[in-house]
Amino acid sequence: MSLVAAVLGANGYGGAGLIRRLRRHPGVDRLRLGSRSYAGRPLSDAWPHLAGLDDAAFLTPDDALDGADVAFLATPHGATAPWVRAARAAGVRVIDLSADSRLDADTYRAWYGEHPHPGDLADARYGLVEPHRDELPGAPIVAAPGCNATAASLALFPYASAGLLSADTVPVCTVLAGTSGAGRATAPGLHFAEMAENARPYKVAGGHRHLAEIEATLGRAAAQGRALRTHVPYRPLPVSFAPHLVPMVRGILASCTFRPEGGHDEASLLDAMRSCFEHDPMVHVQDELPDVKAVTGSDRAVATVRFDARTGLATAFVVIDNLGKGAAGQAVQGFNLAFGFPETTSLEMEGRWP
Amino acid sequence: MSLVAAVLGANGYGGAGLIRRLRRHPGVDRLRLGSRSYAGRPLSDAWPHLAGLDDAAFLTPDDALDGADVAFLATPHGATAPWVRAARAAGVRVIDLSADSRLDADTYRAWYGEHPHPGDLADARYGLVEPHRDELPGAPIVAAPGCNATAASLALFPYASAGLLSADTVPVCTVLAGTSGAGRATAPGLHFAEMAENARPYKVAGGHRHLAEIEATLGRAAAQGRALRTHVPYRPLPVSFAPHLVPMVRGILASCTFRPEGGHDEASLLDAMRSCFEHDPMVHVQDELPDVKAVTGSDRAVATVRFDARTGLATAFVVIDNLGKGAAGQAVQGFNLAFGFPETTSLEMEGRWP
Amino acid sequence: MSLVAAVLGANGYGGAGLIRRLRRHPGVDRLRLGSRSYAGRPLSDAWPHLAGLDDAAFLTPDDALDGADVAFLATPHGATAPWVRAARAAGVRVIDLSADSRLDADTYRAWYGEHPHPGDLADARYGLVEPHRDELPGAPIVAAPGCNATAASLALFPYASAGLLSADTVPVCTVLAGTSGAGRATAPGLHFAEMAENARPYKVAGGHRHLAEIEATLGRAAAQGRALRTHVPYRPLPVSFAPHLVPMVRGILASCTFRPEGGHDEASLLDAMRSCFEHDPMVHVQDELPDVKAVTGSDRAVATVRFDARTGLATAFVVIDNLGKGAAGQAVQGFNLAFGFPETTSLEMEGRWP
Amino acid sequence: MSLVAAVLGANGYGGAGLIRRLRRHPGVDRLRLGSRSYAGRPLSDAWPHLAGLDDAAFLTPDDALDGADVAFLATPHGATAPWVRAARAAGVRVIDLSADSRLDADTYRAWYGEHPHPGDLADARYGLVEPHRDELPGAPIVAAPGCNATAASLALFPYASAGLLSADTVPVCTVLAGTSGAGRATAPGLHFAEMAENARPYKVAGGHRHLAEIEATLGRAAAQGRALRTHVPYRPLPVSFAPHLVPMVRGILASCTFRPEGGHDEASLLDAMRSCFEHDPMVHVQDELPDVKAVTGSDRAVATVRFDARTGLATAFVVIDNLGKGAAGQAVQGFNLAFGFPETTSLEMEGRWP
Repeated sequence: MSLVAAVLGANGYGGAGLIRRLRRHPGVDRLRLGSRSYAGRPLSDAWPHLAGLDDAAFLTPDDALDGADVAFLATPHGATAPWVRAARAAGVRVIDLSADSRLDADTYRAWYGEHPHPGDLADARYGLVEPHRDELPGAPIVAAPGCNATAASLALFPYASAGLLSADTVPVCTVLAGTSGAGRATAPGLHFAEMAENARPYKVAGGHRHLAEIEATLGRAAAQGRALRTHVPYRPLPVSFAPHLVPMVRGILASCTFRPEGGHDEASLLDAMRSCFEHDPMVHVQDELPDVKAVTGSDRAVATVRFDARTGLATAFVVIDNLGKGAAGQAVQGFNLAFGFPETTSLEMEGRWP
Repeated sequence: MSLVAAVLGANGYGGAGLIRRLRRHPGVDRLRLGSRSYAGRPLSDAWPHLAGLDDAAFLTPDDALDGADVAFLATPHGATAPWVRAARAAGVRVIDLSADSRLDADTYRAWYGEHPHPGDLADARYGLVEPHRDELPGAPIVAAPGCNATAASLALFPYASAGLLSADTVPVCTVLAGTSGAGRATAPGLHFAEMAENARPYKVAGGHRHLAEIEATLGRAAAQGRALRTHVPYRPLPVSFAPHLVPMVRGILASCTFRPEGGHDEASLLDAMRSCFEHDPMVHVQDELPDVKAVTGSDRAVATVRFDARTGLATAFVVIDNLGKGAAGQAVQGFNLAFGFPETTSLEMEGRWP
Repeated sequence: MSLVAAVLGANGYGGAGLIRRLRRHPGVDRLRLGSRSYAGRPLSDAWPHLAGLDDAAFLTPDDALDGADVAFLATPHGATAPWVRAARAAGVRVIDLSADSRLDADTYRAWYGEHPHPGDLADARYGLVEPHRDELPGAPIVAAPGCNATAASLALFPYASAGLLSADTVPVCTVLAGTSGAGRATAPGLHFAEMAENARPYKVAGGHRHLAEIEATLGRAAAQGRALRTHVPYRPLPVSFAPHLVPMVRGILASCTFRPEGGHDEASLLDAMRSCFEHDPMVHVQDELPDVKAVTGSDRAVATVRFDARTGLATAFVVIDNLGKGAAGQAVQGFNLAFGFPETTSLEMEGRWP
Repeated sequence: MSLVAAVLGANGYGGAGLIRRLRRHPGVDRLRLGSRSYAGRPLSDAWPHLAGLDDAAFLTPDDALDGADVAFLATPHGATAPWVRAARAAGVRVIDLSADSRLDADTYRAWYGEHPHPGDLADARYGLVEPHRDELPGAPIVAAPGCNATAASLALFPYASAGLLSADTVPVCTVLAGTSGAGRATAPGLHFAEMAENARPYKVAGGHRHLAEIEATLGRAAAQGRALRTHVPYRPLPVSFAPHLVPMVRGILASCTFRPEGGHDEASLLDAMRSCFEHDPMVHVQDELPDVKAVTGSDRAVATVRFDARTGLATAFVVIDNLGKGAAGQAVQGFNLAFGFPETTSLEMEGRWP
């Protein structure tokens, strides 16, 4: 297969990751990079690391979409649904990195406001690849999950899907997130002088929109088990979710504490996690507590679990690169499955150390 | 009062903080700095920031102790109890920054091993100042708390002491800690190249010794209320505790999620926190979610709380400088109370921004 | 003396440093904080580290100036000269942290454009305290130097003033500067995600305006020697100046390479530096190569020099905190001299380590 | 060609970079990883980012060398020459990342001490690829240059080789270097708590051994022009060299100030740099001042030059990843030329942003 791929929002961090992976994707013949603000300018104006490597110029979003077989939408939520519509109207399949294709219309309304094109949602498949892989082949729209949602959902998925999450204890997910997750736009709190030597909680206590995805995935898992369908009705599984910004460029660490149903110990919980992901090349389960650095630059998630017999609580840990498995990496992974390429095509397997 | 103060372990980070605060303490006439490894060498060999400001030299620990009225022990746990003994035998009062005076003999044994001088423990008062202030005046030994324990205990203390912690839900404390908490000794994981752009959980699921202090403080609070006595028997209040190392030099952020007893909302929980600390100059309760940077270089704690009506769970947040309120600052605060100085004497009130 | 001090631009980093030092200055009775953007709002809206410590509110700049004895102007260059004028018209003496009082009208025009109130410049004394201390007492306007200019000028001043800079070799000054020097306003290149794990030269090859000050100071020193007068005509001493932004919050390191006039070695160059600053409490000369961290949070400069017999070139090194000796610290030092307070009143002597 | 490649010192940062590039090198059939300290242990014990990706174990250095066609030596200077000897005795060609094959015996003695196997040096070719490419094909030993030497030499090479460096002014090279250049061994000054928010000069004024390489390369260039031969006698071209450690994991920025021979301006100097490297895929010359981040994770160098008409001095800038073009990347580039593979085989072209 030889596809023309469009990337919209190609001047953002999600866009940079897509450019990296799609430039060398054997199934992508041509790449058309759209950016409203950079249209007409050379790639290196936005991306100094590509200077001298690629003489492409940014196109307008419309021009980028024109003639594409697949559109990767790395544009803001709210602004993306119209591009989904435009792409679908032109027969272009979509990989949507925004929040606009991730939720059903009612849930979207509760967290983001009225969805402008709810009719497209039926075509979307939620692109958390590991549980949803069976429904991704041929998907008209793949909705790449949020970065925090990816980490927290993967941490608890093995236990939710196996019926091991005790119903009487709400899981508590704490997420440590690097600053690139906030996007490329400047903000006072992201100034190096204010973010270095700092850490801060934000949008805690039910305030972060990724929570909608986490509770949906875990709710589906509790009802459907290991293999999930996006459009089977589900009941959200309540989770306490506290994201924290920490002074890293990249990376997410999710620490999710839950009460396992009786009779479990650390070894059996680790076994459950391992067997859950044993056929998933992009999730590695290990004995050791993970370092975020182990996945910086990688599209893999690394996970483990610990059990505290004193309290009867377990904590599952997942690290990802928010711009890898948390964004462009998982988007390309979903694209691969949707279009029939081998799952790991063009993905970053190794991180970098140091 | 005009005291001779000894600092043992004056070449470590705890020592540096003590030197800073005691050099200008109006009640301290002379400062004697002990360090086994630096004895005989000028202060600036260990502390470049003091070059040209103080021509003192390090003494041996024995020489430092000789003639002192009070000894600040910033030496490692296990190695400190013998210095407490030596000081007490010489009639020297002690501010112990190590773990060796913090726990009763049984609890110490469970977490650290057999205590070498359990007879001294009866003279110790636990120096988490806010709940223990009434028993600190005249204390022969003040046991300055661990840095993580300070942050997590302060976060939950208002609710434990007011009987607002639901008994059927174990509080989940996640701590983000800067790297200076690991001390000055080198370790592969603390190399800048391995710790920058990284974050990692460590000693989770009941593995961190500060847990003993947290559970003791909260257990005492549940039984004794607002004003605590160290040597009244208590039942530990179980807590799930997950510390994470993040790439900061200084700072701790504790996020503690708990289920408040019925009928509470965010405003009433914030009120409870405010009224708990209303007479405490070193704890500031605010509406806003706190930044760690707000207390970098300060000896204050800054706290707030959030309530998630969806789950019925609340999260209390505390930020401190691990080397301020988490170490030398709180040690000097305890010293002030023990020796009858105004509580905030020589403490750092403001942090630095940026 | 009991003064009313106004700070304009009190919501910027220079302002924060002034607030810190002036709040506890024994000669300052009242502090009036002006900020156009924060007028009417509590201090902690701009400065989270002061929450709960000071219930002052920001005033408009005009209100802040009203009734003041001295005005500290931490406002942008170009916008500050009119405030100098307003203050002088009201009989208020001025400590100007901007560039607007640092240069004569011709030099200002060459680097910044036409000066709006050149008539005030005759009242200004350049506030690089160490060489200018004799002319600061009673000065109507003290022009606090630029941060980069302070570091580079101090590095070469001992040799320029002693006639030891070879005329046939242009000194090469490389400066490493932390990000707070760029001010508090956001900019794409200052986003944590773009500045962490990065370093970049900027305004090199004669493009940085602080060069005008460096060349003026060194030119004066070559002509006048150890004690400088602002308003004696001088010939700038040409310097090559290359500033680099590095991922620190605070701090400047100047490395200045020059050819000493014949017959010198490292010991004699170090002696020259030591004797130059021997009566200067805020400059410490040491044998060891300095760490920036040794002055973080301090108002001191730390300096040394090295000689390379292979090339006949020497390199002088100075570290400062750009917000300390490079801004508020030196401004208060100049204020102390101008108003007859002991030179180190309310200054930060020690830095923090770590 | 299908080679067996050994990597010695595979547990260090140089080793990690070699593993990354050689695992996917089409000409390398098998990789044998030697590490004295990790022999017998799985790869992920040293390299968490490879956990689950490669089930290889470390070998002893001897075992790794056994049966190899090429040995990459990422072992310390002094300790490497014996491994070169052993490899050569076994007929194994060598890519030496240490300093042990970079200099002639007399120069080595002056900077490092007596060379243990000077007889092997005649077989070595200095592996700064761009000037030495003509003599690398078939080279028995390729001596990969030092990281600082690579950056500084590339900055000045266009001008030295074109006879544009004025003889009466010593070039001044300032280097900003990330902490991974210090290697993986711990040291007090590399503790995150002491290196973050810090910068420091080290081994300045003729004290850094990479200077020997820089002066050799520039001396050869002055005599031989664009294409250099390692073993033609040369006269070192004196350079002032001041390295500074800055708080980055990776990256080097060299700022080299020199006096161009008469009649030049910025445009002509930029032209000279461009035409020098026009056929070099791993050096990119651009108009813009470079960010270190533009080459983080890349094996390219990015360069530019500025001219200051005021002083008549020019400054050439080069950024590299010290572990890319400064270590493993350039070693593999040299390997490619030595063994007849296309120059960029398996190299990292793009960096990562952010």
